[in-house]
Amino acid sequence: MVETQDPQFRRESGRLQVGEHGFDLASQRGHVQRVVLAERLLSPDSSVLAAALADRPALIVMTPSVLRHHGARLRAYLHAARPGQRHELMVVRRTEATKDLAAVTEICDRAAATRLPRRSPIVAFGGGVCSDLCGLAAALHRRGVPHIKVPTTLVGLIDAGIGTKNAVNHDGRKSGLGSFHPPEYSLLDPGFLRTLPHRQLRNGLAEAIKLAIAADPVLFEHLETHGAALAARQFRPDDGAITELIRRAVQGMLEELALSPYESIDKLRRKMDLGHTFSPEVESASDHLVLHGEAVAVDLALSSQLAAQLGILRPADLERVLALLETCGLPLTWSKLSADALWASLAGVVDHRDGELNLVVPTGIGGCVFLDLADIDLALVRSSIELLRRRATSRSTSGARLLSLP
Amino acid sequence: MVETQDPQFRRESGRLQVGEHGFDLASQRGHVQRVVLAERLLSPDSSVLAAALADRPALIVMTPSVLRHHGARLRAYLHAARPGQRHELMVVRRTEATKDLAAVTEICDRAAATRLPRRSPIVAFGGGVCSDLCGLAAALHRRGVPHIKVPTTLVGLIDAGIGTKNAVNHDGRKSGLGSFHPPEYSLLDPGFLRTLPHRQLRNGLAEAIKLAIAADPVLFEHLETHGAALAARQFRPDDGAITELIRRAVQGMLEELALSPYESIDKLRRKMDLGHTFSPEVESASDHLVLHGEAVAVDLALSSQLAAQLGILRPADLERVLALLETCGLPLTWSKLSADALWASLAGVVDHRDGELNLVVPTGIGGCVFLDLADIDLALVRSSIELLRRRATSRSTSGARLLSLP
Repeated sequence: MVETQDPQFRRESGRLQVGEHGFDLASQRGHVQRVVLAERLLSPDSSVLAAALADRPALIVMTPSVLRHHGARLRAYLHAARPGQRHELMVVRRTEATKDLAAVTEICDRAAATRLPRRSPIVAFGGGVCSDLCGLAAALHRRGVPHIKVPTTLVGLIDAGIGTKNAVNHDGRKSGLGSFHPPEYSLLDPGFLRTLPHRQLRNGLAEAIKLAIAADPVLFEHLETHGAALAARQFRPDDGAITELIRRAVQGMLEELALSPYESIDKLRRKMDLGHTFSPEVESASDHLVLHGEAVAVDLALSSQLAAQLGILRPADLERVLALLETCGLPLTWSKLSADALWASLAGVVDHRDGELNLVVPTGIGGCVFLDLADIDLALVRSSIELLRRRATSRSTSGARLLSLP
Repeated sequence: MVETQDPQFRRESGRLQVGEHGFDLASQRGHVQRVVLAERLLSPDSSVLAAALADRPALIVMTPSVLRHHGARLRAYLHAARPGQRHELMVVRRTEATKDLAAVTEICDRAAATRLPRRSPIVAFGGGVCSDLCGLAAALHRRGVPHIKVPTTLVGLIDAGIGTKNAVNHDGRKSGLGSFHPPEYSLLDPGFLRTLPHRQLRNGLAEAIKLAIAADPVLFEHLETHGAALAARQFRPDDGAITELIRRAVQGMLEELALSPYESIDKLRRKMDLGHTFSPEVESASDHLVLHGEAVAVDLALSSQLAAQLGILRPADLERVLALLETCGLPLTWSKLSADALWASLAGVVDHRDGELNLVVPTGIGGCVFLDLADIDLALVRSSIELLRRRATSRSTSGARLLSLP
């Protein structure tokens, strides 16, 4: 559902209930998305996954690395917890660069070939790519079947694994085709982070930083305190720091989602679009070699620098934003970032946001504002990039602040 | 949204308002579908289409025959009613046999290439195939944009053009991939029937007969009185008989739709599935040479014959059903209809209806009941087909009652 000028479209909102073990987000459509914070999901004494699957056969989709790390435990769990029940395991060999509609239809075809009944869920057991493919497959198969998300990455735990949006890239268009199809369940187990590569972990921290800048100063301070250790994976999954990070970030995302589960909000002004105006171009221009979270970090730095240049963001707050990105091992800019290409890409953003740029920039830590195309110009974008590039190269001894990829 | 055993899914319903010029169907999702009965839609003095398009550019999709019959009038109308506004006209050369996902993405690609803003509608100007392709394209492009249906066939006017469902055939599965995506507007002008071939007109009458048997004895009598003339296209589009047929059929469909716009009704028992249990197999087995409405007619005759054999339907009512199908020039059976193939196909229907067959059979004119797989058997299906075949061949002098296609 999209917002139009026509009064026939009213704003739709949801209702968020916060419980000890998670969250329930009820939409006006009569659907409840259950988000469960569940440690040791695949431990034999956990009933969370079995309860979510209920008495239904299931198609469980994963990427090769998830199969390698968790496949044996998953099989043992299902064997013990759901004896005699049908499970079809499917491995999809796709990355962000190959996340396309063909991969979606392969999942639908497998669901049909295994004669999965209509109320049976498709389970996304993996990261953001897996989540996108399964969400869209569930939306399209038989005009919609249930799906369950079990994220194994930090991006998944705090963003892709709880959102209602899914999409694939198509014909050069990042997220060109997709749908809004809320999962039945999001089962969040930080234990899966144990096997996540460092770069993927930092990738997820970028989404947490976005949320903190846009809406949650307490989360921002939490990241300032624990970000370096988290980025270096110097934590145990049952460590309080990561659990607290996930709980706060998830609650923040769900509160935003409850405002407008289907983006029917007035004029498509969503705070959560902070860091997501320039980043699609960065991802596309790099052929997805720059990860989503890295592109978001580049966008956060640029949006904040722009805001500072315009006098919207105080220099001290700009410094905190850039320092936190550095602390978390995230880039401030990308070696191949072109101001001209970024500027050209904004026309497509305006189309997507229905005639307005709605560039989200911070006004401080925990607040933001929307800028229109008339508020900025190419020279400003160019000078902001140049300032970030200088900072990144001057301190380049300590990490990936200037992201250089082949 | 699908019905599951899980209590988190509640039944969603809509609210239907009946007005002089049409209907408004409001869903709990805050969306209102506006169905307008509008004669002479492309006449220079009609503001209906211009009002629906509002101040938005639009992508208008049609099949070659619609372009041939109505393209010039459409262009003239748009030129006069919306001077200076952007319209992209697109012709899709697809039939039911080639209604696939690639055709859908071509429409999305065109919408993107013409830089259609997000609130701009995709307009389906054509029959059921065009409606399905545009509905799914609108559901997927940018995760959902508005769409408007302007049906040009009788099936479109009373069924496809007002429904919320859309789908394409995929990997041998009839309607394998699709979505629920209600149109903003359905603009219904019977004037388009003037250029519709006889066979397509009869095709549409089958859906009206389905509705009449399932829920509307007055519509059934209307068809008994006017069916022969309608089937022979011995009517003027502004004739009261066709207008009354469309108004009653549309209201009946919308009343059913209001009960469960997204099929989340208990156990997927929908009266409107009458005539749609055996028909997908007939369409598929014929490689779509048997039209949808013809397959529905074959299914209606078989379901009624089965009900009569089981003592559920009185012989006099069976006779009225079969006689009406004959009156409307519709087949009672298909020369290649195989009881074994039909029986085998029911397993897939059970999957789709989540474990139950829910075969809808009439209990009389205006009422029906749901049968389970245990209520029927292969021998009964075989003998029912045989009875229909005998009747059809014995009277084959007067039409297509036994449908024989190459």
